[in-house]
Amino acid sequence: MAKVKKAPRPKAQAPKGFRDYFGAEVTERAEMLQKIAGVYHRYGFDALESSAVETVEALGKFLPDVDRPNEGVFAWQEDDDADWLALRYDLTAPLARVYAQNRNDLPTPYRRYAMGPVWRNEKPGPGRYRQFYQCDADTVGAGSVAADAEICAMLSDTLEVVGIERGDYIVRVNNRKVLNGVMEVCGIAGDDKEAERGIVLRAIDKLDRLGEDGVRLLLGEGRKDESGDYTKGAGLSAEQAEIVMGFMSAKRESGAATAARLSELVKGSVIGEAGVSELLTIAELLEAQGYGSDRIEIDPSVVRGLGYYTGPVFEAELTFEIQDEKGRPRNFGSVAGGGRYDDLVKRFTGQEVPATGVSIGVDRLLAALQMKGRLESHSVGPVVVTVMDKNRMADYQTMVSELRNAGIRAEVYLGNPKNFGNQLKYADKRNSPIAIIEGGDEKENGVIQIKDLILGAKIAESATLEEWKDRPSQYEVPRGDLVAKVREILESQA
Amino acid sequence: MAKVKKAPRPKAQAPKGFRDYFGAEVTERAEMLQKIAGVYHRYGFDALESSAVETVEALGKFLPDVDRPNEGVFAWQEDDDADWLALRYDLTAPLARVYAQNRNDLPTPYRRYAMGPVWRNEKPGPGRYRQFYQCDADTVGAGSVAADAEICAMLSDTLEVVGIERGDYIVRVNNRKVLNGVMEVCGIAGDDKEAERGIVLRAIDKLDRLGEDGVRLLLGEGRKDESGDYTKGAGLSAEQAEIVMGFMSAKRESGAATAARLSELVKGSVIGEAGVSELLTIAELLEAQGYGSDRIEIDPSVVRGLGYYTGPVFEAELTFEIQDEKGRPRNFGSVAGGGRYDDLVKRFTGQEVPATGVSIGVDRLLAALQMKGRLESHSVGPVVVTVMDKNRMADYQTMVSELRNAGIRAEVYLGNPKNFGNQLKYADKRNSPIAIIEGGDEKENGVIQIKDLILGAKIAESATLEEWKDRPSQYEVPRGDLVAKVREILESQA
Repeated sequence: MAKVKKAPRPKAQAPKGFRDYFGAEVTERAEMLQKIAGVYHRYGFDALESSAVETVEALGKFLPDVDRPNEGVFAWQEDDDADWLALRYDLTAPLARVYAQNRNDLPTPYRRYAMGPVWRNEKPGPGRYRQFYQCDADTVGAGSVAADAEICAMLSDTLEVVGIERGDYIVRVNNRKVLNGVMEVCGIAGDDKEAERGIVLRAIDKLDRLGEDGVRLLLGEGRKDESGDYTKGAGLSAEQAEIVMGFMSAKRESGAATAARLSELVKGSVIGEAGVSELLTIAELLEAQGYGSDRIEIDPSVVRGLGYYTGPVFEAELTFEIQDEKGRPRNFGSVAGGGRYDDLVKRFTGQEVPATGVSIGVDRLLAALQMKGRLESHSVGPVVVTVMDKNRMADYQTMVSELRNAGIRAEVYLGNPKNFGNQLKYADKRNSPIAIIEGGDEKENGVIQIKDLILGAKIAESATLEEWKDRPSQYEVPRGDLVAKVREILESQA
Repeated sequence: MAKVKKAPRPKAQAPKGFRDYFGAEVTERAEMLQKIAGVYHRYGFDALESSAVETVEALGKFLPDVDRPNEGVFAWQEDDDADWLALRYDLTAPLARVYAQNRNDLPTPYRRYAMGPVWRNEKPGPGRYRQFYQCDADTVGAGSVAADAEICAMLSDTLEVVGIERGDYIVRVNNRKVLNGVMEVCGIAGDDKEAERGIVLRAIDKLDRLGEDGVRLLLGEGRKDESGDYTKGAGLSAEQAEIVMGFMSAKRESGAATAARLSELVKGSVIGEAGVSELLTIAELLEAQGYGSDRIEIDPSVVRGLGYYTGPVFEAELTFEIQDEKGRPRNFGSVAGGGRYDDLVKRFTGQEVPATGVSIGVDRLLAALQMKGRLESHSVGPVVVTVMDKNRMADYQTMVSELRNAGIRAEVYLGNPKNFGNQLKYADKRNSPIAIIEGGDEKENGVIQIKDLILGAKIAESATLEEWKDRPSQYEVPRGDLVAKVREILESQA
């Protein structure tokens, strides 16, 4: 008989750009999201969990010319007649689909929050994965800027509830309409000036990196960088460029003063003036609710990259210092952002539906909380009941049951019990606080040994041989005192 | 200029077989999973969230002949050189990959739990979706049946913690090795008898539907059903069939008695006797921990369809009665199952790694809790502050802030405030318990109107016109009493 060819062993490897999350990485994120959900709920937002899979059509990710989806999404087609399906790449496009699908049943305005993974078919890099969490809240069907103000207030509350202290963050608000007004005043509002507007937007975004002079070059004739590469400019006159520069530095002490300065810059532009007026209303609403400029402020330098914003935009920045990879101090930076987008639902229904919302960068916010030491540590492992005699497994399981019934995390060692050293190595790997030992002698005498592994590790670092021999971290107690003694040690470790 | 062809409007529709979850559907599931995670954690299990996307190779879903994945998974290939990727179809295959990938860093035994969506590329049907939740706990690297017993105990605890009362469920345990022993005794253990074994397995699974006589036919020559279709039998002699029938009805009053009966049936089969001995050990361990046969019992009729089980198998059944679609009473049925599978990790490493675990059917357990009225109702909407004068939005937002700061779910109406009736309709759609009204007169007099919408709806059902005119469900209180009065009404509604 011919030998059956064996299938080669598969590689035990997550696909490129994907990763797994273990233990505390999972529970800390879950707890943070739960706190956020609590705030969203209190604000009247309802949970929504939409399907992870959408038609490419609904996501709006079809490439018009090639009849297949944009490469930024993971997409597939079962057969030539079937719809192209794709994994959602954010939570906003699915919201537009869900709202359009259920618009007769959902309340309007519809306040919803959503938390879950999204997938991007992009080149992975350090810290950049193809699957990551988003956490969004949006209000659909409310044209009033009161909805935008509410999102900003909620964002501020959320940051404080998860553990970012007041003073360690700022929510900045701007308005795309003001920027559009600036473009109008600069004479680049027309349909034929889209390229110029794009250059101006990107130039504003680069202020941090290029400085004022660099931006001025990009607004005007263009800029040659250190390597000699030339970037085309927007072709604004010096006077026009000055308006843009003035816009970026229009921030003043108070919201009212900033608005006054912006008014000067967009004078004569209807849309620009409408934008300034909206900013003023937002500032007033927030002021009335007690959100001062220590929490939320108008800041014209906030632009937000996404093309679909049509009005107010906002961004939450953490202002405490961290060190960058080269050891230089810098602000932690942005952890959330959003704004008003009035056209997304229209794609489906033909009717304009105003909407506004915010998305929190879950991983960045978690990293910030980690740095600030604001995460409860979940790395404490279970109490490990060791196995001295494998025929007495029932005894050990009974101990574990008693501990668990008392609410104490505990387990019996389930590996091969032959080598006792392996059991203690296991307890070490599990980060166990305590090990329980009941050998034949102990059983006979009705006692157990309880090892305080945390104290033991401390003593091992510094103790002399004599001290160590005394085993001050090991206690012999009557079997009946198991739960009480374990609880006492756990409390002493806390 | 040629007209630009407009893209047709996309359909606002989740893909076929996929659905969205709204409000309480999301939060009730999240709360149940959180309670389950609490039990798993107490048992020493660590959270794992593996990537939703795996290589098809790692999932073991490659069709050997056609060089493309099994149709049961959603899979895609970016280009001809790239790996085929797929959405995970369960949480066990990814666990095997994760354990093989990280086996040098993970503790052994590795106890982990996982909760999340899985995807099946199968024909959807009523109540059958292509994306659904699973919730698993597994112990990898423990060959001892103490690990199986622990899983059964944990399953029992879990059901009680989420709200299934003792007596309303039973965890049944069996062992594939006993069944293999029965096959051996019947002479169909050989490699050339796989087809016969399959027929026997399926016949056992059909006992409920076909009755003893039907199963006996399938074990023997075969069976013709009412439509005249013929199903091939396993070809067992009457004597051999009797052993199988005896296996299915081997359950006795106690675990020990059942084991004794099974021993008789598999006498002479080494694997069968090993299986019986394992069952006895499991029964003893559970007994020692206080899990009596009112919670966990040995039941030879539990088979579990999956081919990969190699030892103990278990199933949790809810035993309370519900009515089927035709109004007939029946047990609610299975909500969880699992067993020992010793070969899954071997695919990657070549080394056998024993493992055992359980998977809870999240949606079925939720449905059961719903029927039992054990879910906290989250359908209560927010207090709605109505807008009587859109220029006083700041006043209304301030009220909402006061309520939220007092921990009360509240929102201001953010739609077009012109039509007051629409605002009350909105409050109704949101299931709001209370509406707040502050018109010009109220503002002048420093008062507000508070409508108890729950009481109002009750009165509207039964009140006479006179009673209704008195508006006993509406209160005028000083503006300063907003929070206190709202709290009072909410408490009276609870």
